[in-house]
Amino acid sequence: MPDGPRPRPLSTVLSLSLLPVAGWFIVRPLLDPVPQLPALYTSIGFSIIALIATLYLVPALGPTLIKANLKGRDLLKTYDTPIPESLGLVCAAVYILLLMLFIPFPFSNSFANGRMVEVKGAQYEGIAINEFPHHFLSIYLSSLLALLVATLLGFLDDIFDIRWRHKVPIPIIGSIPLLMVYYAEQGNTNVVVPLPFRGILGRLVNLGPLYYLYMALLSTFSTNSINILAGINGSEVSQALIIAISVIINDLLYLPWPIDFRIPLHLLGSQAEVEVGGVWSAGMAYGSKELVERHLFSLYFMLPLVGVCIGFMYHNWYPARAFPGDTFCYVAGMAFAVVGIQAHFSKTLLLFFMPQIFNFVLSCPQIFGLVPCPRHRVPRFDANTNLLHPSKALFMRPPAKIATLVLHIFSALGLVELTVHPKTGQILETTNLTILNFLLVRLGSMNEKHLVQVLMCTQVAGSVLAFVIRYGLAGLVYDGDRR
Amino acid sequence: MPDGPRPRPLSTVLSLSLLPVAGWFIVRPLLDPVPQLPALYTSIGFSIIALIATLYLVPALGPTLIKANLKGRDLLKTYDTPIPESLGLVCAAVYILLLMLFIPFPFSNSFANGRMVEVKGAQYEGIAINEFPHHFLSIYLSSLLALLVATLLGFLDDIFDIRWRHKVPIPIIGSIPLLMVYYAEQGNTNVVVPLPFRGILGRLVNLGPLYYLYMALLSTFSTNSINILAGINGSEVSQALIIAISVIINDLLYLPWPIDFRIPLHLLGSQAEVEVGGVWSAGMAYGSKELVERHLFSLYFMLPLVGVCIGFMYHNWYPARAFPGDTFCYVAGMAFAVVGIQAHFSKTLLLFFMPQIFNFVLSCPQIFGLVPCPRHRVPRFDANTNLLHPSKALFMRPPAKIATLVLHIFSALGLVELTVHPKTGQILETTNLTILNFLLVRLGSMNEKHLVQVLMCTQVAGSVLAFVIRYGLAGLVYDGDRR
Repeated sequence: MPDGPRPRPLSTVLSLSLLPVAGWFIVRPLLDPVPQLPALYTSIGFSIIALIATLYLVPALGPTLIKANLKGRDLLKTYDTPIPESLGLVCAAVYILLLMLFIPFPFSNSFANGRMVEVKGAQYEGIAINEFPHHFLSIYLSSLLALLVATLLGFLDDIFDIRWRHKVPIPIIGSIPLLMVYYAEQGNTNVVVPLPFRGILGRLVNLGPLYYLYMALLSTFSTNSINILAGINGSEVSQALIIAISVIINDLLYLPWPIDFRIPLHLLGSQAEVEVGGVWSAGMAYGSKELVERHLFSLYFMLPLVGVCIGFMYHNWYPARAFPGDTFCYVAGMAFAVVGIQAHFSKTLLLFFMPQIFNFVLSCPQIFGLVPCPRHRVPRFDANTNLLHPSKALFMRPPAKIATLVLHIFSALGLVELTVHPKTGQILETTNLTILNFLLVRLGSMNEKHLVQVLMCTQVAGSVLAFVIRYGLAGLVYDGDRR
Repeated sequence: MPDGPRPRPLSTVLSLSLLPVAGWFIVRPLLDPVPQLPALYTSIGFSIIALIATLYLVPALGPTLIKANLKGRDLLKTYDTPIPESLGLVCAAVYILLLMLFIPFPFSNSFANGRMVEVKGAQYEGIAINEFPHHFLSIYLSSLLALLVATLLGFLDDIFDIRWRHKVPIPIIGSIPLLMVYYAEQGNTNVVVPLPFRGILGRLVNLGPLYYLYMALLSTFSTNSINILAGINGSEVSQALIIAISVIINDLLYLPWPIDFRIPLHLLGSQAEVEVGGVWSAGMAYGSKELVERHLFSLYFMLPLVGVCIGFMYHNWYPARAFPGDTFCYVAGMAFAVVGIQAHFSKTLLLFFMPQIFNFVLSCPQIFGLVPCPRHRVPRFDANTNLLHPSKALFMRPPAKIATLVLHIFSALGLVELTVHPKTGQILETTNLTILNFLLVRLGSMNEKHLVQVLMCTQVAGSVLAFVIRYGLAGLVYDGDRR
């Protein structure tokens, strides 16, 4: 049997040259003239440190994890070498530690407020966010709590190998600190009603307890939807990376930029033209200081996540030297839920999850037992050609009528490939209902590296579509009211 | 070889009768007339729930932990049955989950403030604490973060079995959220100078960064000092329980009680007589609303800890059915550090740690390598008599001069028993330098249950002495200034 891959080499020159860049970003807010968004510089610096730390710690701690029996076999490879599992724990530790060390930068007066006088001039140039509102500190801390709970629960899941049915609701526990602090702070439970329903429901509807249920379910969704779109090297991390970058791009639209330009979104059906940028209007915040603050908050969580994801991806890329484990999915999923909830853009966030939603809907017949669900639904590996083929679920007994109907619809839509009894027409086999098998059905067999690249393209395409919907089509059902 | 003990039976009647009591305490603040300290009622209710949850969850989850290889042999028993280890994780989970669910009660306006009008009358009767100050929420959340980090690190320690030298500074990481939020909130770094030094240093000294170092070291001390006073059934939990109860008694002195009485502390050397209780003066807070709030904060953390400790002690009591693991020591130690720091009574807290300080000082020659330190320093078990005898450290080579000196001093003080070469006078053996071996040296061999009872008496005696020093002798070096 061939040996597994050796650890990927780390370029010392690159890491050493990144360190001074990180240092510059961290020191820059302390120098005159103080930039308009000082803590954002620190956050970028910390994110680079997150990248370097993950790059070095993941291979360094791998053997320790293997020794503690946190290891797995790579199912789609010819070799049998144990690969360390649960490296998401290392990612989470780096991520959360840096988020904790970051606390004084946006929230302390000595960094932000003490320089108020000097920056004051800048206020007249547009929206200046020198002082972070104090109640945001509780929100930041409750978000950290949620991430830590997610880390602990994810790690427990890795250690005790909790069964699927039991672990689906686990992220709800992680959302408890968010819900409790939201309640204590008397958070807004109103939602803006889409234009067509305003005649009946009015401009705002108070969802009350339902809003809390929605928040709890959002974290469950974002966590589990990343977790079930797994199985090939790099799939979990690449999803998290692309979603995080999408959220960051969306956040950047709301910051005060010195430039100002228009996007001809009326071509896409939007009623209003969209102006992006400009110090005065702070991009799409249109002068709302609160919107700027919310999106800054989101950036503080997303930037280091990108750093951690890139660092980890280097070792998780095909052929993987380290596996993320459930811990990674829990933490990344919770990070998205946190920014979606706390920065109030959960609907936009869900748009970035389109491939995950597609995968979930496609999986439903197997999740709910209509179609037999094997323990692993990953594509089938052919060791001779090194190609992945769609894996199949075999019907041990004739499928129920509803299952036959659903599968025939899926087949007509080109989502699955069915093996049908030539005489009776009864379904004997179906390709497993995941987006990975769907891609293999549509695009033909390919190797693992190619498949994860296709998956990443799908995710990027989903995000592009999300932006079109959010800033193009949403104008049809929502006005500018963003409470 | 005999079998290990069977799980301790749980009295369903007792648990079922405790549930309505807990329910009453939780519901009581919602009923008119609203009590003066509504959230304190909720906290007591939650603490009873913590007790019941721990009682039931510890035996229920034991087999799962054994399956995940979290188990140990009881060194001081005749049987070899694996005992589940790291049950501190269950205690921590119950404790932290309840503390998270508790958030809305003191901090939400709908529970506290919404009833302001009705309670207003009570304000004229004394110090009414209806509304919790909002900045306390960040402090509460940062404390929860510290506890969660401690849980995670403790559990990692249990899984990866980190070496002593490496794990001593680990609790400092847990104190990072405390330090960061303290800094962001521009916490007070002044300390009140003892009366004799006021001529030189003035009334207050600003320690600045040293104060942060002090906070970080306090959490390291409280965690590790509990961790090294371990080894016999029930030792860790009983320490934590008695310290928590001592802190609670100290807190209760500062609450507004309807009764008012004097303690003739001048007999103990105090200059001022001490008045305890009274709605107007709120006990020893003497009208300071902030002092009342701080001690309420401390109670919110200590009451559920007592619940968890009692529940766990039932299963950890000799002969133990479950072991606490490092997780328990980390969480309990961090809980004490949190209240000491956040409620500003770290000096008083340290007084409650006198047996731990004694044990630490006694251990120093072994910790710092003067005296050989075997892997386990627990007393030696004699299976025939079922008694524990002092365990010994053997000198493989002649001790250094300083070690000889120190050991002879310890021996003269009756702290150790030495085996000396009859001719040369060279020390060949010493009893191990722990409080457990010291107790066996002084009081003679006894069985494990008796030894843990003696240890508990020592801890209680330490707390009594602590109160005498704090409220008697402290008057000699401090006035009433408690910043």
